[in-house]
Amino acid sequence: MDYESYFARKLEELKAEGRYRVFADLERIAERYPYALLRRNGIEKEVIVWCANDYLGMGRHPLTIQAMREAAQKMGVGAGGTRNISGTNHYHVLLEQELADLHGKEAALLFSSGYVANEASISSLAQNLPGCVIFSDEKNHASIIQGVRNSRVEKYIFRHNDLKHLEDLLSQVEPQRPKLIIFESVYSMDGDTSPIKEICDLAEKYQALTYIDEVHAVGMYGHQGGGIAQMQGQEDRLNVIEGTLGKAFGVVGGYITGSRNLIDFVRSHASGFIFTTSIPPAVAAAALASVRHLKSSQEERLNHQKRVSEVKARLKLMGIPYLPTNTHIIPLMIRDAHLCKQMTDALLDEHNIYVQPINYPTVERGTERIRLTPSPLHTPEMVDHLMNALQDVWRRFAAKVAA
Amino acid sequence: MDYESYFARKLEELKAEGRYRVFADLERIAERYPYALLRRNGIEKEVIVWCANDYLGMGRHPLTIQAMREAAQKMGVGAGGTRNISGTNHYHVLLEQELADLHGKEAALLFSSGYVANEASISSLAQNLPGCVIFSDEKNHASIIQGVRNSRVEKYIFRHNDLKHLEDLLSQVEPQRPKLIIFESVYSMDGDTSPIKEICDLAEKYQALTYIDEVHAVGMYGHQGGGIAQMQGQEDRLNVIEGTLGKAFGVVGGYITGSRNLIDFVRSHASGFIFTTSIPPAVAAAALASVRHLKSSQEERLNHQKRVSEVKARLKLMGIPYLPTNTHIIPLMIRDAHLCKQMTDALLDEHNIYVQPINYPTVERGTERIRLTPSPLHTPEMVDHLMNALQDVWRRFAAKVAA
Ligand SMILES: Cc1ncc(COP(=O)(O)O)c(C=O)c1O
Ligand SMILES: Cc1ncc(COP(=O)(O)O)c(C=O)c1O
Repeated sequence: MDYESYFARKLEELKAEGRYRVFADLERIAERYPYALLRRNGIEKEVIVWCANDYLGMGRHPLTIQAMREAAQKMGVGAGGTRNISGTNHYHVLLEQELADLHGKEAALLFSSGYVANEASISSLAQNLPGCVIFSDEKNHASIIQGVRNSRVEKYIFRHNDLKHLEDLLSQVEPQRPKLIIFESVYSMDGDTSPIKEICDLAEKYQALTYIDEVHAVGMYGHQGGGIAQMQGQEDRLNVIEGTLGKAFGVVGGYITGSRNLIDFVRSHASGFIFTTSIPPAVAAAALASVRHLKSSQEERLNHQKRVSEVKARLKLMGIPYLPTNTHIIPLMIRDAHLCKQMTDALLDEHNIYVQPINYPTVERGTERIRLTPSPLHTPEMVDHLMNALQDVWRRFAAKVAA
Repeated sequence: MDYESYFARKLEELKAEGRYRVFADLERIAERYPYALLRRNGIEKEVIVWCANDYLGMGRHPLTIQAMREAAQKMGVGAGGTRNISGTNHYHVLLEQELADLHGKEAALLFSSGYVANEASISSLAQNLPGCVIFSDEKNHASIIQGVRNSRVEKYIFRHNDLKHLEDLLSQVEPQRPKLIIFESVYSMDGDTSPIKEICDLAEKYQALTYIDEVHAVGMYGHQGGGIAQMQGQEDRLNVIEGTLGKAFGVVGGYITGSRNLIDFVRSHASGFIFTTSIPPAVAAAALASVRHLKSSQEERLNHQKRVSEVKARLKLMGIPYLPTNTHIIPLMIRDAHLCKQMTDALLDEHNIYVQPINYPTVERGTERIRLTPSPLHTPEMVDHLMNALQDVWRRFAAKVAA
């Protein structure tokens, strides 16, 4: 077989479909967030980033930067091993305690990323609970899908947020079998939320474990930033709360929280946790500073919501349609990969606004979109600038956007 | 089902087996590597770490620390998104170029870890090559096993380093089907190496792709630190060279290198690459400094090998048996989980030497061991101290160690 030409042909197909991805080469400017230096074809220019998942700008917060710098100086730049073999640093211990406390749980466990947290926790839990059946929302993230798939246990996919469907499925499985319901609090691409209380009611009725992905909510919702479950007073009813340190907390890494025994069970069984170098102490230190700060400070959350509301109101005023949500994620639906790319290119080339076109496989084909994520650090002037740019681009392309 | 008592029971079983893991809570002291501060039961004490995978001490090198600190100051502590959505930083681009060059390849791709690099690359390659068959060494690392398993393609496991067996298996598969041979250069727990040239010969004969894991060799072997394949002049014959930034390079993260098309293919298909926050610019900057330094500096490699030879020679002199290897990994076979723990406890409690007992599932049951990893920063005095400690512990426990 001629492997090289096979790869080349497949890549050509992606290009023809308009979904070949070109990564923007950015250099974030910590001192002037959300500005970044874009390098393209040998040219450098400053752009304003409007699509980052560092939702609150904690990645550039003086406290997190100081924490990383100090820990690097004191402990070096790496952990030096897996958690078991010399790679547990005191900052991992402190951060796990802090995360458990953040969610009102007994214990927490750190992973390389939110992706790995989902994949490793779900597959090891389901695999090691004999006869386990999984119930997974159809819109769950790729990392959850991989965890479910890799567990190889019996699974049912319920229609998005459809309680009736979920109950139908739950009721068909033998009552004594272990069950695991997996869902997200905020769905990252549509920005909608799930009926947490009602799912927990069903879990109770059918004695299922509940596993919630709060990746796009931690830091941003709840009085401590514990997420939507915290905001709605449902934290105690969730067996596993999973989150990331890479979005609103601004660093990198993932985690789960839960009862001491459940966490210890995953810690002892999950391949993706056991067989890998742990995150650097300096990363854990920065995340710890971020979590601690957002636990007490309401300012970032308030300003974030304010900025989001402003952007939504302005879009409405201008007649630019967006998916209505009660979260901070603002999707402008374009529904065509080529068009989406043309519009974001125009925003970048002519207005120095960077928003990545979102296409398959991140979203389904035909639901391509521009996803705006305002942060508390986007100034009113930046909002004006964005609106003018969108108005210009909309004027030229709107006729082509399917309703 | 009573989940809590199920978890509790399973954890009790692990304890009874002697393989319940207690992580040592360490604080690495960058200025006095390999010293670390151990916290246990409310008591702090300094220990010397003899089991880290920061093989060359690059995690505490002034160049890597400076690089991380500067990048954190300038760009903040996180990447802010997935590689596609605002998360590609200029340091990722530079590091990928440097890694490609390190291995004499056209391109490279970064992942959250070496574990994720293996899992994501292997599963996406095999899945997307129609009819692909995998040939995997039986001693391959857990991350490779997961990649193979998750790809769900037809697979054959060949006996460790057994060329005859590998050829038997290769010859039985239809010639026109895509094939992927996966092996490691240095097997991390036994410290032995693979016959790279002969495996490449077979791959050529049967037109298979070759995938080598150089995780325990990069930075340490070859004139640039490109690994064993580089040292043996075989780099060109390997389609994928996989490595980590978390061991000899001293930071965290993983990568693959290969032809432009192959790398672009994995970049475009691998779920574990696409759907996750990228590593922080500050981590990439530290890794870049480390790779660049070890590309030209021979000092660390030479001193490393010298220290390893000394330790081996001293062990021989003292009659303490170790698995003979031509690498830097020195396994002392204990072959019993409880005994292994007792001996390492004695080293820690009485001699302030930290070596983690290695037990199942990291190694097979009955092959429990103490794994020593000397670094260039372990001084002759530290070697003396280790030898005295080992002599004492051996005197007390040797009679129980199975031959
Ligand atoms: C819902 C959801 N879960 C998990 C993840 C993975 O988190 P991380 O980026 O930390 O790997 C993401 C995004 O990347 C996500 O959107
Ligand atoms: C052979 C091998 N491959 C891959 C890995 C994973 O690398 P990382 O620690 O960067 O995840 C390890 C160890 O952890 C390993 O021993």
